[in-house]
Amino acid sequence: MQNIRRTARLAGIAALFLATTASASSPPPPSAVDLAQQGDDPAWAITEALTTEIGPRQAATEAEAAARRWAVARLAAMGFQNVREEAFMMPTWVRGAEEASLIGPFQPQKLHITALGTSASTGPKGLEGEIVYFASYDALVAAPEQSVKGKIVFIDHQMKPAQDGSGYGQYGRARFTGANVAAKKGAVAVVIRSIGTDSHRAPHTGGTNFETGVKPIPAGALSNPDADQLVRQWKRVAAGTASAPLRMKLLLTPQNLGQQQSGNVIAEVPGSDPAASPVIIACHLDSWDLGTGAIDDAAGCGIITAAAKHVMSAGQPRRTIRILWAGAEEVGVFGGKAYFDAHGKEKHAVALESDFGADWVWRVDFKLPDSAKALTDRIAAAVAPFGVTRGKQAANGGADIGALVAAGVPAVDLAQDGTRYFDLHHTPDDTLDKIDPVQLRQNVTVWTATLAILANSTDSELP
Amino acid sequence: MQNIRRTARLAGIAALFLATTASASSPPPPSAVDLAQQGDDPAWAITEALTTEIGPRQAATEAEAAARRWAVARLAAMGFQNVREEAFMMPTWVRGAEEASLIGPFQPQKLHITALGTSASTGPKGLEGEIVYFASYDALVAAPEQSVKGKIVFIDHQMKPAQDGSGYGQYGRARFTGANVAAKKGAVAVVIRSIGTDSHRAPHTGGTNFETGVKPIPAGALSNPDADQLVRQWKRVAAGTASAPLRMKLLLTPQNLGQQQSGNVIAEVPGSDPAASPVIIACHLDSWDLGTGAIDDAAGCGIITAAAKHVMSAGQPRRTIRILWAGAEEVGVFGGKAYFDAHGKEKHAVALESDFGADWVWRVDFKLPDSAKALTDRIAAAVAPFGVTRGKQAANGGADIGALVAAGVPAVDLAQDGTRYFDLHHTPDDTLDKIDPVQLRQNVTVWTATLAILANSTDSELP
Repeated sequence: MQNIRRTARLAGIAALFLATTASASSPPPPSAVDLAQQGDDPAWAITEALTTEIGPRQAATEAEAAARRWAVARLAAMGFQNVREEAFMMPTWVRGAEEASLIGPFQPQKLHITALGTSASTGPKGLEGEIVYFASYDALVAAPEQSVKGKIVFIDHQMKPAQDGSGYGQYGRARFTGANVAAKKGAVAVVIRSIGTDSHRAPHTGGTNFETGVKPIPAGALSNPDADQLVRQWKRVAAGTASAPLRMKLLLTPQNLGQQQSGNVIAEVPGSDPAASPVIIACHLDSWDLGTGAIDDAAGCGIITAAAKHVMSAGQPRRTIRILWAGAEEVGVFGGKAYFDAHGKEKHAVALESDFGADWVWRVDFKLPDSAKALTDRIAAAVAPFGVTRGKQAANGGADIGALVAAGVPAVDLAQDGTRYFDLHHTPDDTLDKIDPVQLRQNVTVWTATLAILANSTDSELP
Repeated sequence: MQNIRRTARLAGIAALFLATTASASSPPPPSAVDLAQQGDDPAWAITEALTTEIGPRQAATEAEAAARRWAVARLAAMGFQNVREEAFMMPTWVRGAEEASLIGPFQPQKLHITALGTSASTGPKGLEGEIVYFASYDALVAAPEQSVKGKIVFIDHQMKPAQDGSGYGQYGRARFTGANVAAKKGAVAVVIRSIGTDSHRAPHTGGTNFETGVKPIPAGALSNPDADQLVRQWKRVAAGTASAPLRMKLLLTPQNLGQQQSGNVIAEVPGSDPAASPVIIACHLDSWDLGTGAIDDAAGCGIITAAAKHVMSAGQPRRTIRILWAGAEEVGVFGGKAYFDAHGKEKHAVALESDFGADWVWRVDFKLPDSAKALTDRIAAAVAPFGVTRGKQAANGGADIGALVAAGVPAVDLAQDGTRYFDLHHTPDDTLDKIDPVQLRQNVTVWTATLAILANSTDSELP
């Protein structure tokens, strides 16, 4: 309901602005923002077509290569310049069979599980073991080795939705490094409650990281309802109402394929001043394999590209706009690293990224030089009519432009509503039907307003 | 949001009634309805324990047998009398592997599919074929044989939620007999859009029926997002923007196990008048195998049993209350038929069934003799405080008591809110977390109020 109300309000705002524009007696040519609010939405078209014609596109697989070919053709057809692939090599992990069951002390039941990226294989026969329960990542960290050794570690938690997505960092540790902690304590496998806020039998995948020298163990995530079931059984066992320990059977057979090729796709809107440093805008083209990567991150590619298209259509900007559809973000930001290796020494005026779904932009954050004070005021004023407030914290930039921002490139964040993002993130449910075209268009409008100002900023404002 | 608001209002109503009861200066012993509103809820306890300790319980499998053993112990422990299993034999079908992919003309993509009950097997190597699209069941019925022969039939539709669940009959035909129609026209397989109203990658299973003499073909259901994907690709092909037909690879390997044993579980609250005919209240103990059968129909068993328990606790009723936890409803109402074969010639005063989830009762419908006019008024008045209105249509009774009602046994329907029922029905998502304890308790309260009146009705009111 909240989303529907939001949608209606955003549509109303958009209509108001259109009416204002249309009522002028001698209308000026449409601005980039006018274009973003009218007619077809290239963001929807890109998101619909990429998810329909390519679908899932895991890094360094044939599907991601097909997505790059598709992307080059699409970006060229939209009138962008210097459209190209920039290839790189990367270690590649692919999913195999994945099954889990609770096998005692109650009637055996199948669970919905998915392997985490870099999980080891159980081998084709799987493994069985006793479950040891931890209420949180921190509880596992604090546990003595002997309580874990030889067992299947289960990590529970209570992640809840937040508009700014802030639960991901805290609760995400169970996925990011829980397997590593369990492996070092001698666990035979680790199973976590999904880092997700939904109640569907769709487990959330994502990468997990083993330290150098730590031998990977099988690592999987259960859906929230499956984790609930495990916890209910665990509580009976812990309360002594069941006669035997809680046991699981686990089969995960992922494979490491060694070094495989991935790549970035780059396109540009050439600026009128060849000496001016470019504005770089980024998304990622790869997706996890379970869904079709609609919110993560086809929509991001649609949003940034639509904004660039509208700015280009309204008249050549002073600065070049460089569009980066990064490869291999999900599995370790290999595309962002490859871009930085190839282009990190070039000057960049400012960097922005869209990689948090397709729900509306509610806040703008800046990390700009002091010289850009008037510029930030112009952007804040330009996006305020669309419901976007000015944040008090520094922009952080995003994964694919992370190395650039760490190296000092200024950044602007157009923060999206993440209330339902972790319902869908890295699940089979990341599909086109989850995208609300009205909220998607608000993203494009806010991005267009921001990008038009940045791409026409002066050299005294941005480096 | 709607459910949350509803929940708060129902809780408010319950609190109001408790306060009224508590403020009486010399309180009478608690009525059955008082008991239903206070303290522990046996409906929740049964639903939680059955779904946790047994989980999925497909008809005539070891899981259903375990559920019967569990049920007999539970019902006896609750103080019911004449607790027993009544076994019967039935033809048994079990699921195998299930995989589907769109394999051309676009990048291959996996779909989420589930086999329909009585589906044939594709064999272990699967089959590939061209998809032929039908916008509805009726469009398939009207299609010439040559458009279908040798192809994989896809049946689309636009089922939407309705409070009374009325979409199921019309749209459900695609599942009930779509495969039979397709088989008679020479299709190699049939794939339908799930009979469901959600947007998750959880396909809805359920039985499909082939006429005698029609050779079964493989039959599956896609989740709604997967059906959307197929349709988007189909539209491109139909519009001529793709160069080749739409093709699918399908692997379904279910098996027929021949005659296996299932059974009903029966328990009673003996009435004070042994000559009075019993009130029979029914649910079904079996579930489809994909979820844990929480809304379908552990909750139904919880609701009717809690009501019987509260009526029993408040004082012995005049009529015997017979509780039927039927086996094998999902796969063809074998338990209901077995009960009728064994007991159909006995007199029954009235029959009721709970098999539509755990959301609140909003309407009461009657199919009672004319002699019961005052009785219906008493029931309508007793349930009105809980938000239940009196319907204008005849009660239909439900699957497991269907044969009794068809033979003339009177019926009362306590109609539940089905707005979200077909989001979950027959999917992996039918799990305990979907049950709202406040709405579940409203069911128990309304059932208790109704059952107390029926079980104490006179012989001049009911047969």
